[in-house]
Amino acid sequence: MRRGEFDLIAKLFTPLTGGDDRALGLMDDSAVIPQKRGFDTVVSTDTLVEGIHFLKIEPADVIARRLLRVNLSDLAAMGAVPFAYFLNLTIPAGIDDNWLEKFAAGLQADQEEFGLNLLGGDTTKTTGPVTLSVTICGEAPAGRAVCRGNACPGDLVFVSGTIGDAGLGLPRLRAGKVDDDILVRRYQIPEPRVELGTLLRDLATAMADVSDGLLADLGHICTASATGATLELAAIPVSDAARAVIGDNEPDLLSLLTSGDDYELVFTAPPERASAVLAVADKTATPVHEIGRLQSGPAIVTVRTGDGREIIPETTGYRHF
Amino acid sequence: MRRGEFDLIAKLFTPLTGGDDRALGLMDDSAVIPQKRGFDTVVSTDTLVEGIHFLKIEPADVIARRLLRVNLSDLAAMGAVPFAYFLNLTIPAGIDDNWLEKFAAGLQADQEEFGLNLLGGDTTKTTGPVTLSVTICGEAPAGRAVCRGNACPGDLVFVSGTIGDAGLGLPRLRAGKVDDDILVRRYQIPEPRVELGTLLRDLATAMADVSDGLLADLGHICTASATGATLELAAIPVSDAARAVIGDNEPDLLSLLTSGDDYELVFTAPPERASAVLAVADKTATPVHEIGRLQSGPAIVTVRTGDGREIIPETTGYRHF
Repeated sequence: MRRGEFDLIAKLFTPLTGGDDRALGLMDDSAVIPQKRGFDTVVSTDTLVEGIHFLKIEPADVIARRLLRVNLSDLAAMGAVPFAYFLNLTIPAGIDDNWLEKFAAGLQADQEEFGLNLLGGDTTKTTGPVTLSVTICGEAPAGRAVCRGNACPGDLVFVSGTIGDAGLGLPRLRAGKVDDDILVRRYQIPEPRVELGTLLRDLATAMADVSDGLLADLGHICTASATGATLELAAIPVSDAARAVIGDNEPDLLSLLTSGDDYELVFTAPPERASAVLAVADKTATPVHEIGRLQSGPAIVTVRTGDGREIIPETTGYRHF
Repeated sequence: MRRGEFDLIAKLFTPLTGGDDRALGLMDDSAVIPQKRGFDTVVSTDTLVEGIHFLKIEPADVIARRLLRVNLSDLAAMGAVPFAYFLNLTIPAGIDDNWLEKFAAGLQADQEEFGLNLLGGDTTKTTGPVTLSVTICGEAPAGRAVCRGNACPGDLVFVSGTIGDAGLGLPRLRAGKVDDDILVRRYQIPEPRVELGTLLRDLATAMADVSDGLLADLGHICTASATGATLELAAIPVSDAARAVIGDNEPDLLSLLTSGDDYELVFTAPPERASAVLAVADKTATPVHEIGRLQSGPAIVTVRTGDGREIIPETTGYRHF
C-alpha cells in the first residue's frame, strides 16, 4: 500500500522541516525566507537519477544522504553555510512506504549533521526511474562567497582529502560489494567539506568541488580565471585503499585525475597564504595537499609526471552526455 | 548529434541568465543572490514529468512555458513578485538539439513576459521520461506574503478567471486537438495571476492557486485556517467554451470543481474588502467572482446547488498517487 501525497508529506516530510517557520508547515504554495542583513543567499541544485547517479540496490537512506551531500558540496565550494533545502521527489509505482521511510530517515540524519531544514518540495509519480532533485540554500557574508573566476597565475593549487576513491568504489559497488568497503563508502556517502570551505573564504582565490574529476573541475577554474595550471602527479593525494587497488602504475594514477564523485575541494591561493591554508586544514582535521600551480596561458591543465614529462590528458573527466 | 553538457549550457542556457550577475555565468558551483533589505524571499518548486504532466506530442516550447507558469502561479498565490529560477533538466537519449532549442526558446519567451532570469540548474540524462523541475524565487515585502492559514469564518471566497477549462482541455489534447482549441490552450499555457496576486497582498486573508482542483485547493485553505467553506454552484465562473461542452448538467458542473490545472487564484477576504477586491480585478483586467463564504466548523467544503441542496463531494481533486 502506498500513502497518498498529503499523508506522505504530513508523516514523512513535515518532520523534516524541524518546525522551521519558513516552511509554513509545508502547507502553503511557497516557503517564505526572511532576509538576513549582511549576507548573500547562495543557491545550488543537483539531480540524481536511479541507474545513473545511484544504483537501485543501494539503500534509500544512503541515496538520501548522497543527494544532500552532493548539494552540500556545492555550497562548500562557495564557502557558504547551508541552512535549507527543497526536494523534488519523483518516484515510480514500485516505491513503497518502507523505501520512503528509509529515505526520509537518511535526510533526517544528514540534516542534523549539517544543520539544515527542509522548506518545501514537490512529490510526483513517474513511469521511469526514481529521480531526485535538491535545491539547497546557504549563506555567506555579503560579497564574500568564493567564485571560480578570481584565481591568478602564480597561485598554488590545493586539494582536500584523497582523489579517485569514489571512482574506484563505483565498479566495486556495481559488483555487489555493498558494505564495509572503504572505496564503496567513499562513493556512497561523500564528505562535503563544508567547514573547510567556510574557513577558506578569505584565503582561496577560486574554489570548486571535485564532482566531474580533478582535471575537469580544476579546468573549470582555469577557464573562469583565464589561467593555465600544472599539476604534479606525485603530489596527488591517494588513499591507501586506492593505492592497494592501482599500485604505482602511471596510467592508473592518471585515471584517478579524471574520475568523479569525490566531492573534495580543489582551490587556489597565493603562495604567501599557504601556511594559513594548512593551518585551516589542521583546524578542521581535513587533509589538504598542495598539488600544483597556476600559470599564465591557455586554460589547459598539464600534468607533470615523476620523471619530469608533461602530459595534457585528452579526457578530463565525466561527461554528462 | 547531441551537444555535450557544457556546450549545451553555454549555447542554450547562459543566454537565459540575461547577463544577471547572480548567475555567475552558470560557470560556478552556485548562484549568489544579494539580499534586498525589507523583503522576504519566497521560494517554490514544481516538477513536470512527460506522460503525466505533459504529453510527448506537445511542442517543447509549450512544455517549457507551462513549466515556468505552474511555478509562477505558486508565487502569485503568495502575492510575491518573481525574479529568478533554477532548472533541473533530466532528459533521455532521444531528445535532440532541436527539442532543446525550442525548449530554451519557450523559457526565454516567458522569462521576458514575467521578468525573471535563470540563475542555475543541473542537466542530467535518464533512461526514463523527460523530467523537469523548476525552483522559483520571488520577493514580497517582509512579513506580507499571503499564506493559507489566516482566513476567518465570515470571509468571502473569490476565484479568478474561469474554472474547469484545463480539465476539459486535457482529454481533447490527448485526442489530438493540439491547436486553436481554447480549452486545450488553457491546459497547455495557463495564465499565472502574478499581478493580481501582488495587488491582493493587503486584501486577501488567505490565497492558493487552483492546481489540484478548486475544492481541493480551497480545502487546503480551510485546513490551514481551521474553517469550513460553502460554495454556491451557480456562482462558479464557467467559460463559454466549457459551457458548450458540459451544458448545465449538475454532475458535470460539479466535476469542474474537482478538475485541476487551471492555475487561477482562489482567495478569501472579509466582506468589507469586497469592493476593493473587485477594483483590483478591474485594474488588472482579470475576472474575479465571489463564489462562497467561510464558516466556523470542520475544514470541509460544502457545495450549495441552485435548488438549495448542500452537497459534500467525496472526491475533491487530483490525487498525485
